Amino acid sequence: MIIQLDKDITATQKEKLREQLSGIDYEGNEVKTQFGEYLVAVGKKDFDIRSIGMMAGIRDIHRVSDPYKLVSKKWKINDTVIDLGDGVKIGAGHFSIMAGPCSIESEKQIESTISHLVENGISIMRGGVYKPRSSPYSFRGLGMDGLKMWYAKAKEAGLKIITEVMMVEQITDMVDYVDIFQVGARNSQNFNLLDALGEVDKPVLLKRGISGTINELLQAAEYIFSNGNEKIMLCERGIRSYENAYRNCFDINAIAMLKEKSHLPVIADPSHGIGVRAFVEPVALASIMGGADGVIMEVHQTPEKAFSDGQQTLSYKEAANTYLKMKKTFDLRKEFGKM
Amino acid sequence: MIIQLDKDITATQKEKLREQLSGIDYEGNEVKTQFGEYLVAVGKKDFDIRSIGMMAGIRDIHRVSDPYKLVSKKWKINDTVIDLGDGVKIGAGHFSIMAGPCSIESEKQIESTISHLVENGISIMRGGVYKPRSSPYSFRGLGMDGLKMWYAKAKEAGLKIITEVMMVEQITDMVDYVDIFQVGARNSQNFNLLDALGEVDKPVLLKRGISGTINELLQAAEYIFSNGNEKIMLCERGIRSYENAYRNCFDINAIAMLKEKSHLPVIADPSHGIGVRAFVEPVALASIMGGADGVIMEVHQTPEKAFSDGQQTLSYKEAANTYLKMKKTFDLRKEFGKM
Amino acid sequence: MIIQLDKDITATQKEKLREQLSGIDYEGNEVKTQFGEYLVAVGKKDFDIRSIGMMAGIRDIHRVSDPYKLVSKKWKINDTVIDLGDGVKIGAGHFSIMAGPCSIESEKQIESTISHLVENGISIMRGGVYKPRSSPYSFRGLGMDGLKMWYAKAKEAGLKIITEVMMVEQITDMVDYVDIFQVGARNSQNFNLLDALGEVDKPVLLKRGISGTINELLQAAEYIFSNGNEKIMLCERGIRSYENAYRNCFDINAIAMLKEKSHLPVIADPSHGIGVRAFVEPVALASIMGGADGVIMEVHQTPEKAFSDGQQTLSYKEAANTYLKMKKTFDLRKEFGKM
Amino acid sequence: MIIQLDKDITATQKEKLREQLSGIDYEGNEVKTQFGEYLVAVGKKDFDIRSIGMMAGIRDIHRVSDPYKLVSKKWKINDTVIDLGDGVKIGAGHFSIMAGPCSIESEKQIESTISHLVENGISIMRGGVYKPRSSPYSFRGLGMDGLKMWYAKAKEAGLKIITEVMMVEQITDMVDYVDIFQVGARNSQNFNLLDALGEVDKPVLLKRGISGTINELLQAAEYIFSNGNEKIMLCERGIRSYENAYRNCFDINAIAMLKEKSHLPVIADPSHGIGVRAFVEPVALASIMGGADGVIMEVHQTPEKAFSDGQQTLSYKEAANTYLKMKKTFDLRKEFGKM
Repeated sequence: MIIQLDKDITATQKEKLREQLSGIDYEGNEVKTQFGEYLVAVGKKDFDIRSIGMMAGIRDIHRVSDPYKLVSKKWKINDTVIDLGDGVKIGAGHFSIMAGPCSIESEKQIESTISHLVENGISIMRGGVYKPRSSPYSFRGLGMDGLKMWYAKAKEAGLKIITEVMMVEQITDMVDYVDIFQVGARNSQNFNLLDALGEVDKPVLLKRGISGTINELLQAAEYIFSNGNEKIMLCERGIRSYENAYRNCFDINAIAMLKEKSHLPVIADPSHGIGVRAFVEPVALASIMGGADGVIMEVHQTPEKAFSDGQQTLSYKEAANTYLKMKKTFDLRKEFGKM
Repeated sequence: MIIQLDKDITATQKEKLREQLSGIDYEGNEVKTQFGEYLVAVGKKDFDIRSIGMMAGIRDIHRVSDPYKLVSKKWKINDTVIDLGDGVKIGAGHFSIMAGPCSIESEKQIESTISHLVENGISIMRGGVYKPRSSPYSFRGLGMDGLKMWYAKAKEAGLKIITEVMMVEQITDMVDYVDIFQVGARNSQNFNLLDALGEVDKPVLLKRGISGTINELLQAAEYIFSNGNEKIMLCERGIRSYENAYRNCFDINAIAMLKEKSHLPVIADPSHGIGVRAFVEPVALASIMGGADGVIMEVHQTPEKAFSDGQQTLSYKEAANTYLKMKKTFDLRKEFGKM
Repeated sequence: MIIQLDKDITATQKEKLREQLSGIDYEGNEVKTQFGEYLVAVGKKDFDIRSIGMMAGIRDIHRVSDPYKLVSKKWKINDTVIDLGDGVKIGAGHFSIMAGPCSIESEKQIESTISHLVENGISIMRGGVYKPRSSPYSFRGLGMDGLKMWYAKAKEAGLKIITEVMMVEQITDMVDYVDIFQVGARNSQNFNLLDALGEVDKPVLLKRGISGTINELLQAAEYIFSNGNEKIMLCERGIRSYENAYRNCFDINAIAMLKEKSHLPVIADPSHGIGVRAFVEPVALASIMGGADGVIMEVHQTPEKAFSDGQQTLSYKEAANTYLKMKKTFDLRKEFGKM
Repeated sequence: MIIQLDKDITATQKEKLREQLSGIDYEGNEVKTQFGEYLVAVGKKDFDIRSIGMMAGIRDIHRVSDPYKLVSKKWKINDTVIDLGDGVKIGAGHFSIMAGPCSIESEKQIESTISHLVENGISIMRGGVYKPRSSPYSFRGLGMDGLKMWYAKAKEAGLKIITEVMMVEQITDMVDYVDIFQVGARNSQNFNLLDALGEVDKPVLLKRGISGTINELLQAAEYIFSNGNEKIMLCERGIRSYENAYRNCFDINAIAMLKEKSHLPVIADPSHGIGVRAFVEPVALASIMGGADGVIMEVHQTPEKAFSDGQQTLSYKEAANTYLKMKKTFDLRKEFGKM
């Protein structure tokens, strides 16, 4: 059950509400975000929700039977839109492309990518400065130095930045240099990291776990929201399956289902979702037709020389063509929305 | 290695060819289909294929390193088109919709479905008369009586029929009453059935196994082709995964990959691919944008009363809307083909 | 609901029973096996089963809420024992080893295997004469000629034979030359084959599907039983998983669960269950400690020269050592049964 | 390639070694642990390893082609033994049982568990004070207060403690109150946590990821070792599969394979590995026969009242019986080692 509180609810009114709830054996979890104040009440008894809805200081009250609460569409029918400033918005009818290399490698690479993005009207650049790697002996990213260099160039060009954060301690350092924090598949249930990201006022793109369920993804998002941050995007990046003709199995079903179950924007990652360059485009287009609000993809000037993920990275020329088709596909889907 | 033989190759020329092959330790498998004659040679040595290509009676020779041979795109770049007659074609730029109930239930149901299809310009009707069921105590279909009744009505209305065959013994009885034989997921590696379907001149739609790999599907198709039947469609119908928010995990990656690896048409089955009515449409549209040549889907006048699969079956009204969107999506993808 | 009928139930008594059942909207499925006569009644209403149990001609009546009925332990608490004659019994405290090559290859190979088995006191020999192969161009077995040759030698040596049957048409030819029919993983839900095997009086070893569930396996066994054959063994042979360090993922959990849910003997197939020679023994021993009634495994005089599955086949010397350990492990587990 | 350095290698000798390596394009990673000093060299060229092995200051040199290096058996054939003091050892022929509740709940519960363990001669107690939970609204453990209380009681009784650590920041607080740090399945690839655990001198039990591969588990262990800590145990706790008759699919194959690929002890977790109380025992026994060096399992005075995981937790009485059987099974396996 979600109880939306009035902005000017008084301490006494809150106290009364808590009493009422404990009277029916409900535990109340107070949540205060950038946009509002909520009381998420968890309990088992069935009762007339109007008895609480009528109390002073309450804006609205909703039953949510899902295991996740605040990220559910059951209480918030309108899609969440995330405003990055400068006219860049995600969700609720806006189509987003986030493109860039797997790893930030050098100043020159950053400049080259920025030119490519600007030429193609893309406003969000992706790139990794902290890289989760299976082996401790692999390249693990340029870290904060890389991020600061990148940030300076990107701001100059008017681009927004999305990059992965791997541990709580990195948040404070990174927060001024990112526009969107990305949580990787391996950290999708790193609950302490999610807690901490709930306490900053920066958008978070949360990837589904390597073999995460749809419910687990939504509950992981609930961690962020319930700690105070409503600016969340969900990301489908393929799941682990028995098939080894590709890297991951892009779960097109999840796109449709997440859009139905949650009010949060859903971003598709076809690069990891199939992991083979030649097939990134059809998967990207399919994801849009299936309901995605945006696509995050890997591009590189010379994919075959990329420090990581080269096999799934598009060249600038290939990507430019794909951007166009993605936009046309999104337009057609929007048209369908009116049918 | 695939050796295409001349139509008028002589017995002596064949004999010479076989000698040549055994000289380099290759085993030759002779294949004679509706459309041509081939020798599929399997061996390990590397040699100059021109030495064979130059022999009398040989039309062409191709190296195919895939585990499947005749269904590979490596020797046949042009897409296969399957002609059902009366202007109904599948593959190579034609878009196909196959719709109908999970099970054929009654004369009235057949008539109602036919009206719906005719109104919407759909020319292929699906329906099951032999039903594979997990439990021996479930409804197993109307059998040949149902098929004959259905066939009569469908011919009258100018519709083509696709229906599942479950065992070798059924083929002879069914062959005159079907336009396409369907092989279900559970029989995807029933090699004796595939052998037998290779010996009839009727198109076959071959579903991927419940957790079949892409390679296994193509090798299963190779059974049909190598027994003499080139009229094959591949069908992606979702794979088994750990996720239980839906029935099967529709493998959008497979669509793109099958189109690249094989010259055969690829049909998507979104009804089984997600198994939840509300999400059949987005998965259908995604599959088309991902490369499918057609869609097979379940519709019923009153899905909630269907004998089987009601939860994933669209009503006529829902389906009519989806058909339109599917066609528009296919048109846009065709346009992309020229970009 | 399972109703056990008296041996001498009269036609009138049966008729009354059917009336009674249809009065409460239950559908009755009559089953007549080698050992008894049953009526499997499926319906939704709750009622006092004693009202039927008291009727004339009824031996006993049991509620079985599982989706499978006759193979459930809910009505038959005592383990099924399968008697192959000559003192060879499977299940209910007897430990069975079935060993032999993947494929029957030659007379010489048969003789060599038989010597090995006889020396080690093994009484059941496995081997394939019909081989399901992914590719149509692979060796598909010696067929009936191989089976007859094998049978003659095995009878002479006093060995029992288990071999795979792939299609309904083969049953009649094979039935006099086999002691146990094996149904392979790919045919685990070939319902027509299961129906037909229910109509012969020969034991059947039913393998779990390539990614079959425990419920599906039990329901597949139900097909055989409900068609008249109670002599069924279930076989765990590993399931398909994302892990590719081995061939299949041997499901040790399934062994324990099948033993709890069903009265049928459970046989482990560690050769396919891990698919790597060096690890067949630990998996075999684990399966016994986990509850298996027997083990089926691949042995060959020269595994590296075997026509198929050599990588998972033990040499005679390796196998001899493993047999001993298996027997000791089984003895210890039996001892545990008394603790 | 692993180069073991002499204890008294000089700075000049190290410098020479590094020069030699960079001359053949190998990157050297210096590793200093509790027990030795190593240089893990990664490169592509093939060369005569004796040329380096002969250099001054080098103890030994080994080729290791696996993606993991220091945890591989290729350079260290003898099993690692972990000494917890007071005669409690893990690995290399010692059998370990770790038992206790899922969550530490109260002083009374701790006392009751300790009595049970002492009575049964168990020397390692498990329990969670930081609990990873899918939902932010669930009980998340008693934290440091719980740990300190538990520690005091356990020391008094002479028991060792194993408990989960979830984030880098917790290590410093916890390190004086634990005997073994446990890394949970969701953190199996939390590389920063692994790095940090490599820097403390406390044993670490590393669980396989929810759908982690065997290679990923070994590479995760490599993170700990290469940061300086050799005291590592690997833990198989079941993988995610399509089967939903149980919680996880205990991977018995992994036990045998990990024992072959690595010198580290392997601990089985049958409680999570099947997740159903009635089947914990057979899976535990199977894991031992399959090669496990120990078992970690959940016990509780009143499983049905446990704060978490009650459905897979044994009562004291059930557990006592299982401990006995586990020991007997381990003894038999040891006997097999000599056959």
